[in-house]
Amino acid sequence: MQETVDEAEIRAAFQGDHGAFSEDAARKLLGPSARTIPFRKFDEMFEAVSSEQADCCVAPIENSLAGSIHQNYDLMVEHNLTIIGEVNVRIVHNLIVPPGVEMQDVRRVYSHPVALAQCGRFLRAHPGMEAEAAYDTAGSVKMVVGNGRRDEAAIAGRLAAATYDATIIAEAIEDNPQNFTRFLLLARPERAAATRTRAASGPRKTSIVYRVANQPGALFRSLAAFSLRDIDLCKIESRPIEGRPWEYSFYVDLTGDRDEPRIGRAVAHLAEMTESIRVLGSYPSAEAFS
Amino acid sequence: MQETVDEAEIRAAFQGDHGAFSEDAARKLLGPSARTIPFRKFDEMFEAVSSEQADCCVAPIENSLAGSIHQNYDLMVEHNLTIIGEVNVRIVHNLIVPPGVEMQDVRRVYSHPVALAQCGRFLRAHPGMEAEAAYDTAGSVKMVVGNGRRDEAAIAGRLAAATYDATIIAEAIEDNPQNFTRFLLLARPERAAATRTRAASGPRKTSIVYRVANQPGALFRSLAAFSLRDIDLCKIESRPIEGRPWEYSFYVDLTGDRDEPRIGRAVAHLAEMTESIRVLGSYPSAEAFS
Repeated sequence: MQETVDEAEIRAAFQGDHGAFSEDAARKLLGPSARTIPFRKFDEMFEAVSSEQADCCVAPIENSLAGSIHQNYDLMVEHNLTIIGEVNVRIVHNLIVPPGVEMQDVRRVYSHPVALAQCGRFLRAHPGMEAEAAYDTAGSVKMVVGNGRRDEAAIAGRLAAATYDATIIAEAIEDNPQNFTRFLLLARPERAAATRTRAASGPRKTSIVYRVANQPGALFRSLAAFSLRDIDLCKIESRPIEGRPWEYSFYVDLTGDRDEPRIGRAVAHLAEMTESIRVLGSYPSAEAFS
Repeated sequence: MQETVDEAEIRAAFQGDHGAFSEDAARKLLGPSARTIPFRKFDEMFEAVSSEQADCCVAPIENSLAGSIHQNYDLMVEHNLTIIGEVNVRIVHNLIVPPGVEMQDVRRVYSHPVALAQCGRFLRAHPGMEAEAAYDTAGSVKMVVGNGRRDEAAIAGRLAAATYDATIIAEAIEDNPQNFTRFLLLARPERAAATRTRAASGPRKTSIVYRVANQPGALFRSLAAFSLRDIDLCKIESRPIEGRPWEYSFYVDLTGDRDEPRIGRAVAHLAEMTESIRVLGSYPSAEAFS
């Protein structure tokens, strides 16, 4: 049980192409020698962990401007993974081109729709550039470099430009610099203890998902389990329940470890009031990885 | 103030091309003779209402599988619009091609990323078809018909196929038939009373957005304003506050009209505990439009 895995052996799945913000997050969580394995889609990345092709995965769960990445809440539960760490990555978007292309040549700009939306001011100031939705920020750089056209650019992070030997011609073009993405490190429960992360000691967080009966006041009563014990909720998120339109599961993040008596008691109290409840993990909070 | 506008004169903005699910929703909310005006992006649609190019707009706010469309929560507040109605539209996705194209010819399938995700089972069963992200479901049909290629298809609703004289070659290909999108009808506050909708009398809902101080128990105490008065919350949603990473606004939908004394008192009570609060509207609930 207490076997630890050498960092070099850790295989971390991430979504996107090499150079993605997720790969950046993986390095911050696991160190430089972890092996990062790219997957095109989130469900393929989770499947890789379930099928033991990878030891863990790095999933963006929330952006400080765009909000939660709901699909990953759903996939984390569906694949029954445990949260073993989290990290916040500052998102800096850049306009990236094949070497030699200049600003006035660019007619089309590819990126993930969220990245395009976050660079709205830059794009409006350059009406000659048409924004085109793509699956992925780093993948857009890879594609634009691969195409080799002189009128295409991509919006992505610095690591993506470096990865594909492309050139940044406009730096930090995001509308709002208060742009952070929170990534979770997820593993199969039996591998959780053995996956060594870069976390120093520090504050811990616990994440829980639960459903309450669809009755007036049910959410309020469920939150009493925490507030009556002065437990700080960092976040609450509602997600639709499949097959039950307009009913919701609630995801809460709170400060503390499930092994602390007051957290353990709050979870037991909550279980009395809920249709279902699952602790998704207790883990070092993002401060431990910065 | 009490001037009513003839249905034929109502100009309703929607996002997407003609044939979009949003245009379907506009018809359900406003009747067949309202004028529907397409906009490519949500922010352009909201801007059209603010600048009085349109009298109202129809904004998807939540899908029963994918969850909330957060951008529209943000835009509704930014443009200071009032909610005057809501409707639920059953989302049925179809594989749509230019006339004469057959299933075995299709190599690329265009649609909005959410629609592609909701047809995952169909796409996995047809590995010869590559999914391509596009801005819009109906717009994908328009594009595929315009391109006139024999190897392209789009995923969209029935209205989109009819609008562009295209052919449905596979019907109801969504993974889950419990797929509904909730649309809000939004107007400038001074136009709200004058915009006549199709709503019959029936139950009413009220939507509120508020911020609480970032303190333990603040959300719990705010919900007490409702639960102590047995007011039923239909929905609660958190949205990040721009420039204050990891702090949130809360959007709540509740059963009842702001003119009912207990709702009015709950709002006043909530205002005592919040940094800011806004009633987004009291309006006939979706049942009134079905």
